[in-house]
Amino acid sequence: MVGAGTVGQWLLRAIDSGLAARYDVDLRVVGTANARDGFVYDEGGLDIPRTLGSLSEGMSIADQPGARAWPSALEGLRATDADVLVEATGSPATDDGEPGLSHIREALERSIPVVTSNKWPIALHGVELARLARSRRAALRAESTVMSGTPVLRALTEGLAGATPIALRGILNATANFVLSRMNSGDSYEAALAEAQRAGLAERDPGADVDGPDSVAKLMILSGLVFGRQLRPAEVVCRGITGISRAEIEVAASRGARIRHLATLAFAEPGGVGEVTARVEPSPLPGDDPLAHVEGTTNAVVCRARPVGDVTISGPGAGLELAGQGVLGDLIDVARSLATS
Amino acid sequence: MVGAGTVGQWLLRAIDSGLAARYDVDLRVVGTANARDGFVYDEGGLDIPRTLGSLSEGMSIADQPGARAWPSALEGLRATDADVLVEATGSPATDDGEPGLSHIREALERSIPVVTSNKWPIALHGVELARLARSRRAALRAESTVMSGTPVLRALTEGLAGATPIALRGILNATANFVLSRMNSGDSYEAALAEAQRAGLAERDPGADVDGPDSVAKLMILSGLVFGRQLRPAEVVCRGITGISRAEIEVAASRGARIRHLATLAFAEPGGVGEVTARVEPSPLPGDDPLAHVEGTTNAVVCRARPVGDVTISGPGAGLELAGQGVLGDLIDVARSLATS
Repeated sequence: MVGAGTVGQWLLRAIDSGLAARYDVDLRVVGTANARDGFVYDEGGLDIPRTLGSLSEGMSIADQPGARAWPSALEGLRATDADVLVEATGSPATDDGEPGLSHIREALERSIPVVTSNKWPIALHGVELARLARSRRAALRAESTVMSGTPVLRALTEGLAGATPIALRGILNATANFVLSRMNSGDSYEAALAEAQRAGLAERDPGADVDGPDSVAKLMILSGLVFGRQLRPAEVVCRGITGISRAEIEVAASRGARIRHLATLAFAEPGGVGEVTARVEPSPLPGDDPLAHVEGTTNAVVCRARPVGDVTISGPGAGLELAGQGVLGDLIDVARSLATS
Repeated sequence: MVGAGTVGQWLLRAIDSGLAARYDVDLRVVGTANARDGFVYDEGGLDIPRTLGSLSEGMSIADQPGARAWPSALEGLRATDADVLVEATGSPATDDGEPGLSHIREALERSIPVVTSNKWPIALHGVELARLARSRRAALRAESTVMSGTPVLRALTEGLAGATPIALRGILNATANFVLSRMNSGDSYEAALAEAQRAGLAERDPGADVDGPDSVAKLMILSGLVFGRQLRPAEVVCRGITGISRAEIEVAASRGARIRHLATLAFAEPGGVGEVTARVEPSPLPGDDPLAHVEGTTNAVVCRARPVGDVTISGPGAGLELAGQGVLGDLIDVARSLATS
């Protein structure tokens, strides 16, 4: 498990508390890593309470009796073995998706399945990584990268196997939707954002949420994994919600519409072929649009596929426990398929 | 492939036209069966156009040069081998789920994965069959039995692995919802039903749809496969929509509500434990209930799970091509997992 931030620590606690065992899977954490302490490995299994204690006390996670250590995650991964890699390093918007991208490639190249909560490596290289995973016959699961624990990727990839996706619309960021929902109830932008921050939704620097890059990453992930089409960030037209005024909200409301931070994806031809339209922008949605009724921290995706028609999946869009659950669900699923193969 | 009715024929055509091959899977139909002609088997692959021709001309599907034949599907299955069983026999409401149940058991006992569109064997014995499948390390997939091609089972079982389902509400029959939607627009029950029959939705005898047994079967499938709890039909309180009057629709509308044929499932304790509440009945839903806005042939399920919260999946609820797509999706997925194991 690379990355011992909030999601990684939640997962360590879940494994240590026996949550995974309730699903008939037996998980042993043989290695962990973070940027500060490097990589630590014990084939017999690390002492998870010790690791969690080190993290809460600001000590090095590499300090484990009898374990071997490397200065970086990548060096450690190259020198050791495991049945699954959980890549849970933080996911800032970067040009290259590193260091997560190299961790994921290293595992898949060696046919080690990967579960990740790390958005940008999948956003920037999803098609390449999915192809690598197939060629190595190893699973690549990233459920928690889009709508946290809500199983949207699972439903739209494997669930629609045999159908051809045509287009997609969604509300992909919980903080932005919370802010717009509050503004629709009368709050100013500033008051709504402050409320989101008090609720622990928005970071002190809420840019990734309200300016759009988080939604852009999720739209790129959906394009790559559902449509098989790799987008570059420059192909996604992006406008945040910071410029939205109460007046705009009220004008929309007077027409029975609601402004939502809408992500759209369409291609000239079905199956992700041809010219692409990819946009993340505030959009007034009429009252008969199901996405107009997606409120608060709920997120939703409507995928149009042939011959199925419109499939809509909505659920909670954010939350630490939910991201952790998404990773745990993927991990349990991978563990089960390893047990049956 | 057992069952050569509408879904089975759609699937044969899809395989013959190369649809499956587009997903990198190579499918060969080594056996087919129906009640009239029995079972026919050729390890080298049957001549699918010939089978389809025989079906359209009322000839026996067992008449294939060089193929072996048995008088019944079960005898044929016992005597032959395959990588996957597709069980697509019709699904009338029966006491025992036969003959589909025996076909599915026969395959799973021998560790042969099963894909089925046959509701009642799964409704009546879903928990037992899922357990048998796990013990034999063989897949059991039944996506098309609930909401046709909409991937609701995929999302709520594997997608929520690691979460605990608590309760579920849904609109599970496309014909009943179409009729209620039309009545809400001013039609009488009789006019709405006639329109559904003209549209090819309702059978001449629409009882399975409007009296509730189809929704009961789907609710039992969800109980078994998502919650791990086997229900008997007598445990599901069922009231159809035939007694609904325009007056009731109008009274509900005057309060801002819409009458929907609602299926509900709840247990005294999370994870399908303790006393069960299982109901299929017309219910007035207030305007702020997302299920009140599920219109026409669209169906939807809202599953409450811990820690995820409410996950909603909506999509088309019926249609031949959609049921076929659900089966094809399952089949492609099983074929892929066989290829990687």
